[in-house]
Amino acid sequence: MTGEPIDLHGALATFEQLWSPRIVTQMNDYDIRVAKVAGEHVWHSHEHTDEFFLVLDGELSIALREADAERTVVLGKGSVFVVPRGVEHKPSAAGGASILMFEPTGTSTVGDRHDPVPGHVDATTGHTLG
Amino acid sequence: MTGEPIDLHGALATFEQLWSPRIVTQMNDYDIRVAKVAGEHVWHSHEHTDEFFLVLDGELSIALREADAERTVVLGKGSVFVVPRGVEHKPSAAGGASILMFEPTGTSTVGDRHDPVPGHVDATTGHTLG
Repeated sequence: MTGEPIDLHGALATFEQLWSPRIVTQMNDYDIRVAKVAGEHVWHSHEHTDEFFLVLDGELSIALREADAERTVVLGKGSVFVVPRGVEHKPSAAGGASILMFEPTGTSTVGDRHDPVPGHVDATTGHTLG
Repeated sequence: MTGEPIDLHGALATFEQLWSPRIVTQMNDYDIRVAKVAGEHVWHSHEHTDEFFLVLDGELSIALREADAERTVVLGKGSVFVVPRGVEHKPSAAGGASILMFEPTGTSTVGDRHDPVPGHVDATTGHTLG
């Protein structure tokens, strides 16, 4: 028995907490998560997995520390980006955004290495919906 | 060195072929693919992987053969669905749709078991963009 389709905007309407991803469904050993974000997340990296972002609404910036240089990519609505494993990154959204993420089940929102986690950032492996 | 964000609608604008997914990016050993679809695909199943669908535009139906029963789920724009491994399914889109799929690199569009593949269906593991 399989499930039912899930409307992402309906899923996003069920919670308000920022930087606190909800797991909308799973495939194989991966989660599909959605999150509402605004302001700044925290510098962190995932040693063992890439991280996929899709912007559903708003605009997401991702600051990246590559080799010796730092740069920021900006994703508008409908844009995707993959942060490679091991690359320190800090998502932010000055005007707010809703995003979809794809990552292995159990992946922490603050990665394996991170700066001190500010109070507004939820260090979690994702919450169930509803 | 990482890449640049990819706008999915821009990616979709680079091709017209139906039922012929383009790989927009990869994470770990997975592809993120987009496809334009209209009419009917073919009954098939993937023995070793679930398959994730997100509707970017239009409406996608997925007929499913579960146990002894057949049913069809309908995904509007912004809805997601996961077809579990081993479940025979046939996507269709009477009015056309653009979709995003997430699946292991090397996964065939017609699965491991399938009905005869009609000429309008591209049996592929995905094409590169552009």
